[in-house]
Amino acid sequence: MNDVMTTNIKIFLLSLFEQGVKNFVVSPGSRSTPVVLLLAELATQRSEINIYIDVDERSASFFGLGLAKKNKIPVGLICTSGTAATEYASAVAEAKLSHIPLVVITSDRPAELSNIGAPQAINQNDLYHGNTKYFVNLNLQDDSEQTSKYDEFESQRTVARSLDYPRGPVQINLPLRKPLMPILDSEDPLVSKINFNSANYSSVVTDYKQILADKKVLIIAGPEELDYHSDLLALAESQNWPIMADVLSNTRNGSKYVINNGDLIIKTGTKEILDYVKPDVILRFGGTLVSASISNWLKEVSSSAEIIYVGDHESNDYTLSTNNFVAGSEKSFIKNIINLNLNNSPAYLEKLIELNNFAERKKNELQNDEFSELSIPKIIDDNIAKSSNIFLSNSMPIRDFENYYLGTKTRSIFCNRGANGIDGVVSTAMATGIGSEDNVLFIGDLALFHDMNGLMMAKRYQIPMTIVVSNNNGGGIFSFLPQSKATDYFETLFGTPQDLKIADIATLYGFDYFQVPDKQQVINALDNDAKQKIIEIQSDRSINVKQHRMLETKFGSEINQFVIDKSK
Amino acid sequence: MNDVMTTNIKIFLLSLFEQGVKNFVVSPGSRSTPVVLLLAELATQRSEINIYIDVDERSASFFGLGLAKKNKIPVGLICTSGTAATEYASAVAEAKLSHIPLVVITSDRPAELSNIGAPQAINQNDLYHGNTKYFVNLNLQDDSEQTSKYDEFESQRTVARSLDYPRGPVQINLPLRKPLMPILDSEDPLVSKINFNSANYSSVVTDYKQILADKKVLIIAGPEELDYHSDLLALAESQNWPIMADVLSNTRNGSKYVINNGDLIIKTGTKEILDYVKPDVILRFGGTLVSASISNWLKEVSSSAEIIYVGDHESNDYTLSTNNFVAGSEKSFIKNIINLNLNNSPAYLEKLIELNNFAERKKNELQNDEFSELSIPKIIDDNIAKSSNIFLSNSMPIRDFENYYLGTKTRSIFCNRGANGIDGVVSTAMATGIGSEDNVLFIGDLALFHDMNGLMMAKRYQIPMTIVVSNNNGGGIFSFLPQSKATDYFETLFGTPQDLKIADIATLYGFDYFQVPDKQQVINALDNDAKQKIIEIQSDRSINVKQHRMLETKFGSEINQFVIDKSK
Repeated sequence: MNDVMTTNIKIFLLSLFEQGVKNFVVSPGSRSTPVVLLLAELATQRSEINIYIDVDERSASFFGLGLAKKNKIPVGLICTSGTAATEYASAVAEAKLSHIPLVVITSDRPAELSNIGAPQAINQNDLYHGNTKYFVNLNLQDDSEQTSKYDEFESQRTVARSLDYPRGPVQINLPLRKPLMPILDSEDPLVSKINFNSANYSSVVTDYKQILADKKVLIIAGPEELDYHSDLLALAESQNWPIMADVLSNTRNGSKYVINNGDLIIKTGTKEILDYVKPDVILRFGGTLVSASISNWLKEVSSSAEIIYVGDHESNDYTLSTNNFVAGSEKSFIKNIINLNLNNSPAYLEKLIELNNFAERKKNELQNDEFSELSIPKIIDDNIAKSSNIFLSNSMPIRDFENYYLGTKTRSIFCNRGANGIDGVVSTAMATGIGSEDNVLFIGDLALFHDMNGLMMAKRYQIPMTIVVSNNNGGGIFSFLPQSKATDYFETLFGTPQDLKIADIATLYGFDYFQVPDKQQVINALDNDAKQKIIEIQSDRSINVKQHRMLETKFGSEINQFVIDKSK
Repeated sequence: MNDVMTTNIKIFLLSLFEQGVKNFVVSPGSRSTPVVLLLAELATQRSEINIYIDVDERSASFFGLGLAKKNKIPVGLICTSGTAATEYASAVAEAKLSHIPLVVITSDRPAELSNIGAPQAINQNDLYHGNTKYFVNLNLQDDSEQTSKYDEFESQRTVARSLDYPRGPVQINLPLRKPLMPILDSEDPLVSKINFNSANYSSVVTDYKQILADKKVLIIAGPEELDYHSDLLALAESQNWPIMADVLSNTRNGSKYVINNGDLIIKTGTKEILDYVKPDVILRFGGTLVSASISNWLKEVSSSAEIIYVGDHESNDYTLSTNNFVAGSEKSFIKNIINLNLNNSPAYLEKLIELNNFAERKKNELQNDEFSELSIPKIIDDNIAKSSNIFLSNSMPIRDFENYYLGTKTRSIFCNRGANGIDGVVSTAMATGIGSEDNVLFIGDLALFHDMNGLMMAKRYQIPMTIVVSNNNGGGIFSFLPQSKATDYFETLFGTPQDLKIADIATLYGFDYFQVPDKQQVINALDNDAKQKIIEIQSDRSINVKQHRMLETKFGSEINQFVIDKSK
């Protein structure tokens, strides 16, 4: 029996490899024994294969998500049977929404141990249900040629499906019967790559020249999933179009075409401002915007403007404002329109640049050099190594970066912006640090606590990592929401102070630790040579909300006055 | 709109309350705001309601599992939308297999934000799929009388379903549209309890007198789910039947009817021993046995013995040896047969008692007072406060307790013995400590690391807890499995040393810490007054496996000789 299993598992692993799965995150367990042993053997023969070990499967799955997010190739997760597999559920849901190709390989008890009280035998069939793209059971212990041919085809096709647009997670379930020891050092079967091609659908039939010529065109760049930000910047430059750039668009690079204050301007703006910036056509790229204000504004704009949404995002637009979806690659769409002669006047561009420059100046003036949560994004932006990776936690860090990040030093920004969870942030961030010298994670205390186990991967693989923790001892974002008025219950239900000493976390995982009370000390700590460090910035939730509100109020009145003056 | 929402949520919460949901574990989030605010308000009026807050939803769900496991009443879990809900997946799978009534309440985005790129909008419909008993979407914002009547009925019925045999988890999904602030201090709607009765199916039609009279009858008591261990002990006494008692059966109390060495005897036994102990009839109670040896033995016995399995375990028996399933409550079955005049000779009982006493003596002699992982169960058993709760981690702790625990001081033993995961152990254990003065968790270093976040609940609610950590720096159980021979890959893939200092974990969560190198110091540390403490026992994986194997070999030859002598 074992030689059949050994051969079929090798066919399976070589098939994954042929389809480009080279990074694996393995969590130890008994049922997966033959798969991981043969994988480890294969890795000794193919140096492209990397195996990462993570005992906590939740952390492992977010780590795999991070590897796939950064390298944009599918990552294999391998675990044993039982709750190990359910631990992947959160990262799988995130991968589905943020279009990350995860190949989830769940070892399982054999069919005859289903529903019959056998230990560690949960129902693993289509385990992630609505949150995966595809599910398949592969039989690796059947001694028939059809089985091994099917395994070879189906495992390759399943990886290919994870890469079909929109990309996403797939589950391969492997029921395995004892004995589970494979034969090591045996000959490899021959596996050939099957090619799964997509028809080229880049040529667009609509006459975009007619739609775009002689119009006020605004590009809105949302979170970038595949790599097209340079094309987008070239398009803006070529056509004199402003880009309203989401913090995750990777287009904030200080270029004059980039409008980075869209959220603040629209959030605090009056009807006059909204009229002032209103375009005739919006060209949207990328995922759901971090800015809720800009998203809401799209609904209003759509009554008078054409909104075109380009990309393979499942024709998703929760603002229901798009009237023109272009399914296809962003690059090929841009190629189609970048050289059109559209007879553009740069007037709209210049108007937006002027407004944005004013906004940027005022925003910085209003902060008065005060040290607060508001000032962290700029301090990080100005003081990290060039081309650092920045990973942002959900909740407040991503929001503050949206408003206060310019892209001075880097444009590699990551965030789990599909399901927007604060879970798994640390593990995902650690993975994006693999192979890079300079990595910064900006995170709040709750998210750090939630996925503290992710620090184990930093420790195990000695990943260079600077963690900036904004510690306001609890859930800062809730202070911005209406429930903050329910004072009898607020602190218990939403504030949720954890009272953990960040210094003790640093000690546990061998990070250097800096507690920094002012801007200069943050800069010093960022400059410090330690390869792995945690920089703690203490803050107060209620002061933080006041600082945000005061800045927005003052900013709003300045920007409104500016527009009134301009419109005179 | 809000008054409708407020009224319907109150109907929903009062319905849960009427059906017996009194303990809630809440994880903070925005979408669940109206539910948790109104729950907090309700809790000020009904003192039976307890709300626990846990930021890490995975930990929260295992904490809820622990509350339901200990108190045997349904527990509500409440979380926000998105990956918060997927974080529950592992505890839900465990609850399904170990028959724990969890009422999983997942807040969700409203229907119009499904599949359309809205933030934090994963697919929550039937999220746990094959691993829950029931799923329902409840609309709480529809202003029609039918809606509120339906909500009242369906939420009550859903809780009732979690309690139907076999018990298990249910999911109630609550799509909620903004605004999310409820009206506090408003009048309560009237909610009446609906009664869901089961027909009484306790009267058994089979003529058990005929099956059981004048036979060698062996009771096998597996893990106890509901409370019948006293009845079982009374049955044994009344009929002179031995009980082969699983460590989780709660029947190990030193009574002479209790055979506690079944696993060791059968695991090391020859054919002569197996013949020696073979019964004519086996009466099985409880869940899947911890002992794989006894389970395998059942397959052999079934060719010559009648095997009767009593209880609401879905007629599950993965050994496929049962030929007589009795679906119904254990208590009522016992009541039916306890007073039958079966004309039993105590010969079989006495034979097993003699064998077990010999086994117990030899087992203790063979350990030679050596201090090792093997000796921990007995040291704990002998030296904790009477009626302590003991929570056992999966992997090695439960196995060592199966072989070395007598029940000297306590019979409240818990373990997550459905899916047998090492995840969530700490959180579940913390919950079983609520309301009890003396609680012991026995756990390995990997499981402690996996669910370290569970310690937050001990810190937050000041739960009295002694954690005994057997630290062999990695996955000890794998050294017992065939892969330990794949020496090139073993340590990386299976050994997985974490190199964490347990003392640093204690510091982080404010536990007292003891590192104990010998038996006397374990006893001293157990005696120490600290309310929350971690006792670390360092051990070596390869020495541990040798100690287990050597003891089993010697024990096997002693017990075989004993039986040969007896059979002469």
